[in-house]
Amino acid sequence: MITYDMNMRGGMSKYEYLFQCIRRDIQSGALPPDFRLPSKRSLAEHLMVSVTTVENAYSMLVSEGYLYTKQSSGFFVCRRPLPPPQADEPEEEEASPYRFDFKANRCSLSLFPMNTWTRLMRQVLSRQDPVLLQTVPFNGLYVLRQAIAGYLYEYRGMSVSPGQIVIGAGTEYLYGRLLQLFGPHNVIAIEDPGYKKFADISLSYGTLWDYIPMDSEGIQTDRLKNSRANIVHVSPANHFPTGIVMSPGRRAQLIEWAGELSDRYLIEDDYDSELRFAGQPLPTLFSQDSRRKVIYMNTFSKSMVPSLRISYMVLPQPLMELYRSRLSFYSCSVSSFEQYTLAEFISRGYFERHINRLKRHYRRQKELFLAALGASPLAGVCSVQKSQVGTHLVLHMNTRLSDAEIKRRASELGLHLAMMSDYCRVPSLAHAGQAIINFASIDPEQISLAVRLLEDIFRADIDLKKSS
Amino acid sequence: MITYDMNMRGGMSKYEYLFQCIRRDIQSGALPPDFRLPSKRSLAEHLMVSVTTVENAYSMLVSEGYLYTKQSSGFFVCRRPLPPPQADEPEEEEASPYRFDFKANRCSLSLFPMNTWTRLMRQVLSRQDPVLLQTVPFNGLYVLRQAIAGYLYEYRGMSVSPGQIVIGAGTEYLYGRLLQLFGPHNVIAIEDPGYKKFADISLSYGTLWDYIPMDSEGIQTDRLKNSRANIVHVSPANHFPTGIVMSPGRRAQLIEWAGELSDRYLIEDDYDSELRFAGQPLPTLFSQDSRRKVIYMNTFSKSMVPSLRISYMVLPQPLMELYRSRLSFYSCSVSSFEQYTLAEFISRGYFERHINRLKRHYRRQKELFLAALGASPLAGVCSVQKSQVGTHLVLHMNTRLSDAEIKRRASELGLHLAMMSDYCRVPSLAHAGQAIINFASIDPEQISLAVRLLEDIFRADIDLKKSS
Repeated sequence: MITYDMNMRGGMSKYEYLFQCIRRDIQSGALPPDFRLPSKRSLAEHLMVSVTTVENAYSMLVSEGYLYTKQSSGFFVCRRPLPPPQADEPEEEEASPYRFDFKANRCSLSLFPMNTWTRLMRQVLSRQDPVLLQTVPFNGLYVLRQAIAGYLYEYRGMSVSPGQIVIGAGTEYLYGRLLQLFGPHNVIAIEDPGYKKFADISLSYGTLWDYIPMDSEGIQTDRLKNSRANIVHVSPANHFPTGIVMSPGRRAQLIEWAGELSDRYLIEDDYDSELRFAGQPLPTLFSQDSRRKVIYMNTFSKSMVPSLRISYMVLPQPLMELYRSRLSFYSCSVSSFEQYTLAEFISRGYFERHINRLKRHYRRQKELFLAALGASPLAGVCSVQKSQVGTHLVLHMNTRLSDAEIKRRASELGLHLAMMSDYCRVPSLAHAGQAIINFASIDPEQISLAVRLLEDIFRADIDLKKSS
Repeated sequence: MITYDMNMRGGMSKYEYLFQCIRRDIQSGALPPDFRLPSKRSLAEHLMVSVTTVENAYSMLVSEGYLYTKQSSGFFVCRRPLPPPQADEPEEEEASPYRFDFKANRCSLSLFPMNTWTRLMRQVLSRQDPVLLQTVPFNGLYVLRQAIAGYLYEYRGMSVSPGQIVIGAGTEYLYGRLLQLFGPHNVIAIEDPGYKKFADISLSYGTLWDYIPMDSEGIQTDRLKNSRANIVHVSPANHFPTGIVMSPGRRAQLIEWAGELSDRYLIEDDYDSELRFAGQPLPTLFSQDSRRKVIYMNTFSKSMVPSLRISYMVLPQPLMELYRSRLSFYSCSVSSFEQYTLAEFISRGYFERHINRLKRHYRRQKELFLAALGASPLAGVCSVQKSQVGTHLVLHMNTRLSDAEIKRRASELGLHLAMMSDYCRVPSLAHAGQAIINFASIDPEQISLAVRLLEDIFRADIDLKKSS
């Protein structure tokens, strides 16, 4: 008869221990399929436990598919399915295969205030406050929306109420809700070059879109006027990847355009305005516009860490009312633990300190990178387009290499490199030879090495320059 | 001249301290709009700091919109916008207004393993592992999908690979992705009564749906055949709110129906199959179906805590390949911190222990509730529909009150109560007088009081019964 030492069960209840012992033997095959178990009574006597104990263990084993019963003839071991294949995509969690990733736009782990975050998270959890487990309002926790409203007032000069804010699991998620809010019968204008992913998102929601070219002042509003688009997505504070800050004139034109028709709206993507190093910030379109036609979008993926999926949007009051009536049935998609933690992080001033730390770090990163570039022969064959915002530079290369060839050589050298043409609808000569350098994730000690590797790509151009 | 005691700055750098002092005075109004600040040099001499320190502080104040410059005439205080209104929706984070909530289907905080969770979360964060900050694969962390695959094998007898699993921020989120995967030219069949929210979700994605009535065996497959629906949403393990477990015959018919046409699919919502107290579990449709037509859905909101937004779906291989090609551009919507924590929680066996604890608790809750009901005069005017799964009961009341009247009286007594008709497309007499009792969130000590309050609703029926 099967035998288990009930004294080995530690803190476990008898029936749970028995349940686990038998299950282990079924899994290991020690108890083969269709093996008949002893009757409850006899096993109870054998193990010197109560019949109820065995009864409970057996019924749990039955309810979890380890045992089956035949009427009045006892309990038998079920056939188990094959174990699941676990061999696929084994490399998935491995680190990036690149030595230097100029494409990934993320900060290094060392900058994330892990200890503070953990402490706050622990405090939040240990409060044992029932509110923690309450279902979160559709638009996110009030305390977090309040903290964000305060932050927007302090740092972006925006006066919004917590009731206008919707918190969601990432910007893409919020774009999806927005497209649903507007419905499919709209045409989205996307900057070219620009955030091409918005085209994928629009497609997946059955919404049409149109690319509108950029010039040095930002999106070309005259081209916009001649398009069918009625909703525009722009990043006026720091356009990626061009680094262009939209000119005041262009902003005024955009706002005027939006005001002309009731179905026109602007989506302002302010994704990394926090990381402004110097110079006077232009106000947000949201606060410049008096007709309530601007939806403001921002994320903590850039300022905190990408793996923290918390973004938010600010809707003008009329749109917010529409959102409430149409989409508030959707539950909030962000864990309340992390919402409470972030709310504390912001309202206790940690976020501000963190941002200032990031700014100092990135400013230094940029200076080091520019210095290394200046000292390198690369300087002779490229011009650097600087900007006072964000964590990337554009190198205009004076090269004979095609963008494809540049990327091929880069990846041979262990560099992950994107070119301006990657962000264009149609790669054109006008955008050729422009390398996008995200320096955020490069270790300061390694910058000169990274630049030397960039040199190797353009060796021929450098030699040509020397010989001339 | 403005004066600050630089010795008060603690660990702060001089320029940051100066920046914060001046900002505070601007916010307080001590430095009014258009006030002209001292020149860098003079303030530097006055405070006995370097000019660079003042320069840095001023440029930060400019870049954050506190100061503006006039060429060669110095730095001036900006006009600040009004502080944001914070007064709206003040009650939002308050606890439920009800004494007893029979509608909310959530467990009590006391059952959530807060300490274990916090400890694991702390361990995950303190690993300081760069992988923590890596962008998560579109379908979720491999370690979590691996843990889930193992769990499904152990407890649901399902043999799936981690590569078939997609993790998302809540079931609603995953339903949205599914609807996008299938595209708008499908018709969803929704059980009636049943999960009406799926109709809202379908509407928001522009997909048509049709309600298919239930009978005691589950969804009526003959009605399904005569509908235009090609995708069916069902909860075979425990239908909410009827508590019906789908019969083997009905399952076979459903699977056959799905196999007949290439565009037919079944969505199996297994939301609370973990909470089975006794009796033999029927296998999942997913594992019964050989034609790979079943999408399996499950969530941790029910088994862990609703405010933890982690759900997952298992796709048949062909659909998974389609998902990869069409929707993998969407980033994963769940924080990697919580994904790692949950993966640890499952793979170290805490999840199993937690589930067993929940089962014991809910089984006891149910016994207590049934005992209190049996001892109450209510027993004379209602019949209880029991089930071996889940955390709710259906009371079939022998009453003269309308459902609306029952709910009105309930809320007067501080009870949050839903009726079967609330989950029906069209309230019919066949579904009248059926009260849905979610006992999960009721404090065991309070059960008899809760039952006494239920009595008061049906006092007239009870007296009538006595007098007859």
